[in-house]
Amino acid sequence: MTSPLRIGLAGLGTVGGGVGKQLESEGARLAAVSGRAIEITAICARDRSKDRGFDISGAKWFDDPVEMAKSDDIDVFVELVGGSDGSAKSAVEAALSAGKHVVTANKALVAHHGAALAAMAEKGNAALNYEAAVAGGIPIIKAMREGLIANKITQVSGILNGTCNYILTEMEETGADFADVLSDAQKLGYAEADPSFDVGGTDAAHKLAILSSLAFGTEVDFSSVYVEGIEAVTAADIRFAAEFGYRIKLLGTAVRNEQGAIEQRVHPALVAHSAPLASVSGVTNAVSVDGGYVGNVVLTGPGAGEGPTASAVVADIVDIARGITFPPFILPQSQLSAAETVDMSDYSGAYYLRLEAADRAGSMAEVTKALAAADVSIERIMQRPDQGRDGKWLPVVLITHETHEATMRRALGLLSEHADVVSTPVVIRIQGS
Amino acid sequence: MTSPLRIGLAGLGTVGGGVGKQLESEGARLAAVSGRAIEITAICARDRSKDRGFDISGAKWFDDPVEMAKSDDIDVFVELVGGSDGSAKSAVEAALSAGKHVVTANKALVAHHGAALAAMAEKGNAALNYEAAVAGGIPIIKAMREGLIANKITQVSGILNGTCNYILTEMEETGADFADVLSDAQKLGYAEADPSFDVGGTDAAHKLAILSSLAFGTEVDFSSVYVEGIEAVTAADIRFAAEFGYRIKLLGTAVRNEQGAIEQRVHPALVAHSAPLASVSGVTNAVSVDGGYVGNVVLTGPGAGEGPTASAVVADIVDIARGITFPPFILPQSQLSAAETVDMSDYSGAYYLRLEAADRAGSMAEVTKALAAADVSIERIMQRPDQGRDGKWLPVVLITHETHEATMRRALGLLSEHADVVSTPVVIRIQGS
Repeated sequence: MTSPLRIGLAGLGTVGGGVGKQLESEGARLAAVSGRAIEITAICARDRSKDRGFDISGAKWFDDPVEMAKSDDIDVFVELVGGSDGSAKSAVEAALSAGKHVVTANKALVAHHGAALAAMAEKGNAALNYEAAVAGGIPIIKAMREGLIANKITQVSGILNGTCNYILTEMEETGADFADVLSDAQKLGYAEADPSFDVGGTDAAHKLAILSSLAFGTEVDFSSVYVEGIEAVTAADIRFAAEFGYRIKLLGTAVRNEQGAIEQRVHPALVAHSAPLASVSGVTNAVSVDGGYVGNVVLTGPGAGEGPTASAVVADIVDIARGITFPPFILPQSQLSAAETVDMSDYSGAYYLRLEAADRAGSMAEVTKALAAADVSIERIMQRPDQGRDGKWLPVVLITHETHEATMRRALGLLSEHADVVSTPVVIRIQGS
Repeated sequence: MTSPLRIGLAGLGTVGGGVGKQLESEGARLAAVSGRAIEITAICARDRSKDRGFDISGAKWFDDPVEMAKSDDIDVFVELVGGSDGSAKSAVEAALSAGKHVVTANKALVAHHGAALAAMAEKGNAALNYEAAVAGGIPIIKAMREGLIANKITQVSGILNGTCNYILTEMEETGADFADVLSDAQKLGYAEADPSFDVGGTDAAHKLAILSSLAFGTEVDFSSVYVEGIEAVTAADIRFAAEFGYRIKLLGTAVRNEQGAIEQRVHPALVAHSAPLASVSGVTNAVSVDGGYVGNVVLTGPGAGEGPTASAVVADIVDIARGITFPPFILPQSQLSAAETVDMSDYSGAYYLRLEAADRAGSMAEVTKALAAADVSIERIMQRPDQGRDGKWLPVVLITHETHEATMRRALGLLSEHADVVSTPVVIRIQGS
């Protein structure tokens, strides 16, 4: 047997504790699998005295992650500190510069600095593994880097944020509104005290930018992701969507068009009940990949939590122990192209539109005339006189035929100013798969 | 760049042609990914003159796969000949003995001879990759060998045969009977002229035996798999199951019990509509893995066909080009334990039971009394007077509480001899997940 693989663990929160416990409990089996022992030889965390659920007595203690990253005591730097910059970034850079392997669960770091870090890793022939950064325990990064490598991917889309999916599922099942469900989710620990990163779509966008790079062989380009969160989704929209045969999900989607340009977008979407992603409920994540040869493959599983996330981190470590190292984004970093971006105004698809029209004869005709004038063609329309407000305003809900985003925005402008329409109309994109 | 990886392709049917086409079309990209070119340098097939859809002019032609397997012209022997014995086995053994890597899509070969072939591969430090043998294009072997490696797996179950799932889906959607749907499936090319390997469950059992070995660290043990096919499933059972909230699927399931013994079984099962596997329809396959840390992960996708199967074969080849080689069944073959088998009579679960009872006062009481006498406890029961036969026999359908298989068989024996019961009762197991 080769000498043990020496792990330096930076960050001993939930995930770090899980990694320690799994490496301890599964140590003998993982050593047999890898052909070498895996040992935690160094640890960097704030509080030395806290019980972490595994034996840390043999590990050297560091107060500064950068010092640990450079130290001769480790072969692999496991970064579970978090944050796109600050000490997480400095420490990962220090480790890669020293030719050490890095395993990280840090989606923000990889989404913001993936290309630069990949170049450093490749220079030192080191691994930069980040399975835990996307969809928790689901081995989607491995599937895209290895299992589906034969395929030119045309689209990747997924439910990438468990907090949002939990909230939308609860809203559907209880009929409660966003704010109430969010507040319950915070009490249950399914949402952070400051939930904006999750419900605003940023977390899903980080993950999507990573998947997009792997799918299309482009440099990670987080700044080009179009992002809308779920804050504006109402219980009424979920109910109306259901009447049309849809569920509302926060989807992250990356598509390459025929000219090779890439559209990356995170937004709530109406998904047909029969689509694979529609039945993914609660905190579960799912990623759907369309490959040229393989067709559609969907991976579903727990997207967060101690066990699943640590399981992904440990798999990344075992890969290194087995000697698996190749460019972090599949192609050598020098061969990744800069992504040409499709502007969101060029998006086209069907839309769900809800507005409140004046409760008087002819107002429906006025609204549909305005949409026609704006070049928006209606596929289905539903007026619900029983759900009016103040006896004056009636909800009108409709589904459009395929429409350009720019056209839709123009139509919204016209509608917002229309005498028969009160308040800003609600628009949600419809996604087939 | 290293020297090209030289591929010998044995078998140029649908999948072999697909592998050739994918390696040709994706050649430049895969070379960049792997750090070396991948070239088909040798081919073994029956007809030299047939157009295979890719350029075979540069490859050396062999009539005997064993000769090609031993030849100095190749580094990797790709076996797409098929069959658990015969030339496929001889050629794979010859390749491994010569220290060459092997990639195969041959589930029967791996299910019957996996342990012996793994020992040969490890002796020569060669890869034995078989991603395409289970669930076609779905990267489930990679997920179990690598992505989920941290976990002690407790259960793996799946829809592993596209032909059966297509037939059951069609039966549900059209109300037609097994024989009619099978005959249509044969015309459409979804079922073989001799369908017994598929509909009888053997094909699914081959795949399950492989998954079971990976899940539990045991030697592949195909002979211990309990197998029932779908031939006896009727349109009536599918209809009654739906009324109880279930779909009927052919599932392959491997479970390790608390004593460490392993139950492997392939049989039709009632799956609750809400379970992830219930919504997998048509020729699609799906594998559900329950891991100790990660929880439940489900992979869904195309289980057969040129593109998906070749995609899996090419991924296996690229792994070798990237230098990824480790024991075929995760642990070194010498450390795999012989599986201790749970006998099917020790199985326990809920059952669906359909029988025809005499259409006269008191017959229901007689039937339920007989079940009670046999120690079978009923959870739900449904009698359908509108669906009687010959004005004399009425269908009685019921769901039992958890019951031992041995108890159920005893009850069936009693019922079969009962004066109020005509024909043999139909029994289908119910599976929660």
